[in-house]
Amino acid sequence: MAILVVGSVALDTITTARGTCPNQLGGSATFFSLAARRWTDVRIVAAVGRDFPTRLLTILRHPRVDLSGLAVLPGTTFRWEGRYSEDFSSRQTTGLSLGVFAAFKPTIPRVLRRSSSVFLANIDPHLQDLVLSQVAQPRLIAVDTIDHWIRHEREALIRLLRKSDLVFLNEEEARLLTQHRSHRAMGAWLRALGPSIVIIKQGWYGAVGWIGRAMVWVPAYPVDETRDPTGAGDSFAGGVLGVLDAARRINEHVLRQAMLYGSVIGSFCVEGIGVSALARLTHPRFQTRLKNLKRISGIRLR
Amino acid sequence: MAILVVGSVALDTITTARGTCPNQLGGSATFFSLAARRWTDVRIVAAVGRDFPTRLLTILRHPRVDLSGLAVLPGTTFRWEGRYSEDFSSRQTTGLSLGVFAAFKPTIPRVLRRSSSVFLANIDPHLQDLVLSQVAQPRLIAVDTIDHWIRHEREALIRLLRKSDLVFLNEEEARLLTQHRSHRAMGAWLRALGPSIVIIKQGWYGAVGWIGRAMVWVPAYPVDETRDPTGAGDSFAGGVLGVLDAARRINEHVLRQAMLYGSVIGSFCVEGIGVSALARLTHPRFQTRLKNLKRISGIRLR
Repeated sequence: MAILVVGSVALDTITTARGTCPNQLGGSATFFSLAARRWTDVRIVAAVGRDFPTRLLTILRHPRVDLSGLAVLPGTTFRWEGRYSEDFSSRQTTGLSLGVFAAFKPTIPRVLRRSSSVFLANIDPHLQDLVLSQVAQPRLIAVDTIDHWIRHEREALIRLLRKSDLVFLNEEEARLLTQHRSHRAMGAWLRALGPSIVIIKQGWYGAVGWIGRAMVWVPAYPVDETRDPTGAGDSFAGGVLGVLDAARRINEHVLRQAMLYGSVIGSFCVEGIGVSALARLTHPRFQTRLKNLKRISGIRLR
Repeated sequence: MAILVVGSVALDTITTARGTCPNQLGGSATFFSLAARRWTDVRIVAAVGRDFPTRLLTILRHPRVDLSGLAVLPGTTFRWEGRYSEDFSSRQTTGLSLGVFAAFKPTIPRVLRRSSSVFLANIDPHLQDLVLSQVAQPRLIAVDTIDHWIRHEREALIRLLRKSDLVFLNEEEARLLTQHRSHRAMGAWLRALGPSIVIIKQGWYGAVGWIGRAMVWVPAYPVDETRDPTGAGDSFAGGVLGVLDAARRINEHVLRQAMLYGSVIGSFCVEGIGVSALARLTHPRFQTRLKNLKRISGIRLR
């Protein structure tokens, strides 16, 4: 089993109340793969520029991660600069340089076209669709997006969602897309569109999901201190899809397990700047936190 | 076992996007008793004016509710007028008439002074303290408050909390009182103050609690449509304390059950204007929703 992830590998400059950390390894495909590789094989399709530091590549290298689809193109790497408010409740993009990403037209290497799962990270829905047209019947097609595409490429996004099995949205995005307010109504609207699995992320509260008519709720792991929320959504998605991809059957109980694991992995992500905490996460530390979260939530996994 | 609740019985005029409902039965002691009476005996100490409609008293009357401490005084009943924003994310007090509540100095009838639990609903912390000075060693002293008292009577409130066993706060109030941002830090600060049980309410996300060092998280029941959130916090508190008061021992598992039951009862509260949905709630409907919430959350109660 293996997940094909198409998204960004980027250089982030992150400003929080504590200061600015320039040129951190970032990007949706990065955070996703660092999480998902704990449970399954991951194949990254993305592009960086010739300026991409080799030392950062070593963070991505892993026995379970196939980097053959990571193109190094003439030009500069996608760079994002963001500033978080003191309590991390909001963020502002203070700089953006698309670099090689501006002309990024994902071409899936032939050998990667048969993957059991596909994760279409947040990029233009037309490009997400272009990826889908190149892959051979994956078991699970998962889509992430942001408010920008909901506002400006609504129709293309909806066409894409009709073909997908799982969609990740945060509450604001779900409200914007569905025009509903209650979780139930949002979930029903999205499932009626196509995806049989819908996951709405609620930040530090947790996440609510549906598989068919069954609803699944999991809490976020209560971290002591958030240092940088960048990548929390992508690492949560990596945990969820990693578990789902590795599972023989996907049902309500497996979805709960997947979301709980995603919640734990997302909690490590926000505790470090960039990928730092995720990259150095050990199995025992993951297990301890998982056990704690199960105790806090009273959740028994089957 | 019985809970003594000291709070308000009021007439509320509630405005939502759907219109205005005048003179609804309201008040913290009202919502609390309608919830808690499902599990234990409740004794209300409050005051209304001579204008209080007799037909509303019938809603409060119940085999498990002792109204002997509900004084009918010369003057008018406490009236509150509030307007909710369209999505219920905020509310504004548009009118307030204290009436007999202005001079309310709770005197606990001798026969009610020995109660196993005491719920000090949101009133001036000095009055909450006055109640405490009249009761004989309850097993559980629970305190609710609002931002107004945190801002203006901080010292009196903190003195009161030192003597209490359980405090209910919403997230905003907890942040204001503790000056902390993470759930863990808020909980630790509050427990260090005195209460061995701390519950922080998170609106439509759920609630997080601690008993000693053990943390307990429960989701809110996902309602299809909120019609009026007035009283949601007090009915949640009524569910929680009702279960705790009826329990032989209070531990982490009982607290989880209590918060889960409180969550379910709060979900009925918000579905009707004023007390309407709570007052007509049947046992089978409660049980069905409890079963659903356990399934959604994966929580197994011991």
